[in-house]
Amino acid sequence: MSGGNLLVAQGGGPTAVINCSLVGVIEEAKRAKSGTIGKIIGARHGVNGMIDEDLVDLGRETPSTLKQVFNKPSAALGSCRRTMKEEDYGLILETLQKYDIRYFFYIGGNGSMHTAHKVSEVAQNAGYELMAIGIPKTVDNDLAYTDHCPGFGSAARYFASVTREIGLDVESLPPPISIIETLGRNTGWLAASAALAEEKKGDAPNLIYVPERPFSLEEFLTDVEEVYRKYGRAVIVVSEGLKDEKGNYLGGVRADASRDGFGRGLPGGAAAFLSAKIAEELKLRARSEKPGLAARTGIEYVSTVDQEEAHLVGKNAVWYALDGKSGVMMTLDRSKGKKYHCHVGSVPLQNVAIAEKLLPAEFVNARGNYVTEKFIDYCRPIIGGPVRSFPGLVGHKLTKRVVIAPGAVRHKSVNV
Amino acid sequence: MSGGNLLVAQGGGPTAVINCSLVGVIEEAKRAKSGTIGKIIGARHGVNGMIDEDLVDLGRETPSTLKQVFNKPSAALGSCRRTMKEEDYGLILETLQKYDIRYFFYIGGNGSMHTAHKVSEVAQNAGYELMAIGIPKTVDNDLAYTDHCPGFGSAARYFASVTREIGLDVESLPPPISIIETLGRNTGWLAASAALAEEKKGDAPNLIYVPERPFSLEEFLTDVEEVYRKYGRAVIVVSEGLKDEKGNYLGGVRADASRDGFGRGLPGGAAAFLSAKIAEELKLRARSEKPGLAARTGIEYVSTVDQEEAHLVGKNAVWYALDGKSGVMMTLDRSKGKKYHCHVGSVPLQNVAIAEKLLPAEFVNARGNYVTEKFIDYCRPIIGGPVRSFPGLVGHKLTKRVVIAPGAVRHKSVNV
Repeated sequence: MSGGNLLVAQGGGPTAVINCSLVGVIEEAKRAKSGTIGKIIGARHGVNGMIDEDLVDLGRETPSTLKQVFNKPSAALGSCRRTMKEEDYGLILETLQKYDIRYFFYIGGNGSMHTAHKVSEVAQNAGYELMAIGIPKTVDNDLAYTDHCPGFGSAARYFASVTREIGLDVESLPPPISIIETLGRNTGWLAASAALAEEKKGDAPNLIYVPERPFSLEEFLTDVEEVYRKYGRAVIVVSEGLKDEKGNYLGGVRADASRDGFGRGLPGGAAAFLSAKIAEELKLRARSEKPGLAARTGIEYVSTVDQEEAHLVGKNAVWYALDGKSGVMMTLDRSKGKKYHCHVGSVPLQNVAIAEKLLPAEFVNARGNYVTEKFIDYCRPIIGGPVRSFPGLVGHKLTKRVVIAPGAVRHKSVNV
Repeated sequence: MSGGNLLVAQGGGPTAVINCSLVGVIEEAKRAKSGTIGKIIGARHGVNGMIDEDLVDLGRETPSTLKQVFNKPSAALGSCRRTMKEEDYGLILETLQKYDIRYFFYIGGNGSMHTAHKVSEVAQNAGYELMAIGIPKTVDNDLAYTDHCPGFGSAARYFASVTREIGLDVESLPPPISIIETLGRNTGWLAASAALAEEKKGDAPNLIYVPERPFSLEEFLTDVEEVYRKYGRAVIVVSEGLKDEKGNYLGGVRADASRDGFGRGLPGGAAAFLSAKIAEELKLRARSEKPGLAARTGIEYVSTVDQEEAHLVGKNAVWYALDGKSGVMMTLDRSKGKKYHCHVGSVPLQNVAIAEKLLPAEFVNARGNYVTEKFIDYCRPIIGGPVRSFPGLVGHKLTKRVVIAPGAVRHKSVNV
């Protein structure tokens, strides 16, 4: 096959590095041997742009523009969340045919991989030759068959960094309890990643709770009290998706019309709920922080390893397609060696679309309130170097003076 | 006066640059003519360390340590919020006398300036010679008599940056409404500063609400609907301290024991409350973000102008004290000229302690849902250069093809 055009699109929630994959696709497509790839087309807002023919010519973007796009958070082409209907696929096929698109790349998460798989099937059934390749992307890290997902490393670095910064704040002026809510509705990968903030025992985070483990409010309060007794403060990281014993989100569901893929409401605020409980039950000052979208757009905290890997899977996708491979998602496969290295592989799209990768049991401690060393070893190389460290004063203590100034009476110090 | 020792302490909520002022004090004290300043002492956790004699010898900290501390968020000496009792001042005087402290510097906000003033008075009444100087610090920017407060510029830069980043995310994948809650219980300075994210009409933030203006839920919903109709999305910035017509915080009060200076509860969550209202009343998807403490510790977003000015007021405080000046707070006085420049001045502590600087009426538009150009002109130089910009794809539109592939039927596109 030769001379066909290429189309690339972005689906689902953006990440800090989703555009690195896009740039990888464009760069390699531009570099392809003359006569193999024709036009390089981008669809605006994912499948919406494919259905509505909202398309742009990416081949005309200059290298300097692409360099800027590489470092731009949010989806540069625009993204979408669309519940696909059967007829949508017919419209997509029609667009593919009209524009002679023979290479299709979809950068996205589970939902987008499902869509890419369906597009691949529909084309095949119609006898339309198409190389359809999925490029993984999600801050949630819940795609199976890949060691980790591009996008996760940067969001992980964000939460580890912010947890360290807030930990220092709490240490210098104890509220004394601060609860940080991370993204992650069904999986605890991002909550777990905050553990990379810890440099020495007692550092933030002191406790981590993930949705993979049943949550007991009673055990939680016991844990918090214990940490507070030991350190006089506690920084706690919780996944937004924590559920109570009955399977309901801790903070209830959001009042808006937002629904997940199964039509269920979205979580309403685990951290705010838990900080109120700490105040009521333990009579301690507690506050909650919820950076939310700031965590997936926080480009200042981007992981350079994540950027490189996102770029790499984008480039590889083009090589795979030129090699005649289709119906697969690119994966990152970690080498067994001691030194961290991932090479790029692939997995059939149909396998990925239906699987959701949870935190394995060995990554969470027995009590269910922190991660294990195994998780730390897994996550550390992905976030792109250690989280920024903030050494402080050495603090040479002055010995207390016993001489009382004449006439001064030593009152008992009253702590308020 | 010669040969006395110096004590410096930090009070209230930390900022990203509170340690720049501390370093300024230490550096200048070290540089002072031999025989003027003896030991350079730091009190841990503000007045608590002065009362409990928890003191460190800052003169022994090396230049390389001070350089690290300059870039460290949180209060390097530790901070405090203490409701002072009369007898506490007696204990402080005793410590001053025992350690022969003749120079006292307190880095803090309104409360700390009140404390510094009282310490100055108590020393004077006891006939104890003491140079007491206040060094302003607060992200809230609510100290009077100074053009702005060290700490504000960095938090302002944080909110402007995060608003821009979230704006890009929402633009690329519309939720379609995102509400960002800023710090600022009584004043809207930080909510207002998010306006610096706007590069062109329609950019985030679309609406800004501050506690200086009465808040009407009805007008708010009308505003949101109008923005949504125009742009298909809206990024709204609200101050945590927004109150309803009855004077109650929109999101109620926090469940914990936290109280403000008047024993009142703290705000419980304006953004979460408003996003629920938008969902209920306008039937739109809305979500809320509340970076909270991350905003005052977010060192990656620090304003270099803010760092320099915080450093400068710390250094000036030492010069003032060596000059025999006491009972004043350092101020930043803006030059009248076109080019931004602040020189350092001073104001009596007793004036500052009781005043709270609100956003002037001329900084908020008539409708009360955005800031004015005057505010932008005021705030822009303080945040240390323009907020990071993220140019994207040029986006060369492809013209739609009219040729329908043989056999393909054009269905009506259904948006879900």
